[in-house]
Amino acid sequence: MTFKASILTLYPDMFPGPLGHSLSGRGLEKGLWSLEALQIRDHALDKHRSVDDTPAGGGAGMVLRADVLARAIDAAAREDDPRPRILMSPRGKPLTQARAHELAEGPGAIIVCGRFEGVDQRVIDARNLEEISIGDYILSGGEIGAITLLDAIVRLIPGVMGNMQSADTESFETGLLEHPQYTRPQEFEGRTIPEVLTSGNHKKIAEWQREQAEKLTQERRPDLWDAYCSLVDGNHK
Amino acid sequence: MTFKASILTLYPDMFPGPLGHSLSGRGLEKGLWSLEALQIRDHALDKHRSVDDTPAGGGAGMVLRADVLARAIDAAAREDDPRPRILMSPRGKPLTQARAHELAEGPGAIIVCGRFEGVDQRVIDARNLEEISIGDYILSGGEIGAITLLDAIVRLIPGVMGNMQSADTESFETGLLEHPQYTRPQEFEGRTIPEVLTSGNHKKIAEWQREQAEKLTQERRPDLWDAYCSLVDGNHK
Repeated sequence: MTFKASILTLYPDMFPGPLGHSLSGRGLEKGLWSLEALQIRDHALDKHRSVDDTPAGGGAGMVLRADVLARAIDAAAREDDPRPRILMSPRGKPLTQARAHELAEGPGAIIVCGRFEGVDQRVIDARNLEEISIGDYILSGGEIGAITLLDAIVRLIPGVMGNMQSADTESFETGLLEHPQYTRPQEFEGRTIPEVLTSGNHKKIAEWQREQAEKLTQERRPDLWDAYCSLVDGNHK
Repeated sequence: MTFKASILTLYPDMFPGPLGHSLSGRGLEKGLWSLEALQIRDHALDKHRSVDDTPAGGGAGMVLRADVLARAIDAAAREDDPRPRILMSPRGKPLTQARAHELAEGPGAIIVCGRFEGVDQRVIDARNLEEISIGDYILSGGEIGAITLLDAIVRLIPGVMGNMQSADTESFETGLLEHPQYTRPQEFEGRTIPEVLTSGNHKKIAEWQREQAEKLTQERRPDLWDAYCSLVDGNHK
């Protein structure tokens, strides 16, 4: 069974978009994962095909209707469909690499893309939608969030990336930001590759890379550094 | 002068992608912003058009060459080009709504999309690239990060969103996650709209929405809640 993504959106033409290129695109062609983009508007209840209405209590913008979205979700997935039901939302739990791994090991995902001012809370509750946020900023809709989530997942599906080792040494996989990288030429505009990296001493290289990763994480991301230190302390006990 | 994005990528066909639809797409058509996607490979130095090489010190994956990328950047932007030079990178500073606003008020951005194991550190230093991360997870490349960054920026450019008020009351603009939303119908699968929202009492509605936003932020994002409390305390002093 391969990973199957069902996207509920008002803009199905946005898909696969960037996911149709490069690694994820080749994975799609090879059938390593699949994607369907479903039009929420097809489940509207009136002849104008309305999907939204003004927010209760007043205020700007429009809210996606609970009844229309519930019909769209129910048409995309039977009650016994084991795939998690996700709503892309800035109010959601921030996406982590750990959650991307969990999702990549599962049967797929049903992903609802919000638009307008938001989604009626009652469909979030009634259909038990898991709200996921890709970051602390606002996008014009959930579609680009869904593309981001899927890219993070799909590259972890076996066979999609040529070189699986590469996936394990990157930022977040170790709890640290990744050390700086260098490649040929030896000299670029008077800047040379740090000597240790061309020494051939693998132990010293590994030590230097670890030191650099720790320094970078400490400087740039004190939040990640604290979490990393707690974890290391815990393991030593 | 309108916002101009120049993207340096190995996959120019990924652009505008989702940015060609909906609000950002209409903004592009109207000339409220512009985008060019430039092929890094056009600046390769050998007949094989190589852009990457093995990492110094060994290890998996490939590293984008400093000399090739520097040529691509220099061709895209003269030295006096006032636009910030951004590298999408999981090691970067996390994107915030505040940074999106700053960028939206500026002349545009030169955005470098990394691929492979990373980018030679020397071009990051020599061209003073600002590393921005869209979140703590790994993507297959910088392209989807660039699309996300641009979507966050473009919707803030005057004229792109129909209703500017809507942009100001959302999650992160107030420092809190947004309160739950409801719309018609009054009853959905036995669930009704909270009574206060249909009371017509604007003061009570605003109080309820603020309480809900505070409760949600406290429960889901203690990090944001702490930052919000510090800010409020500071303002009271």
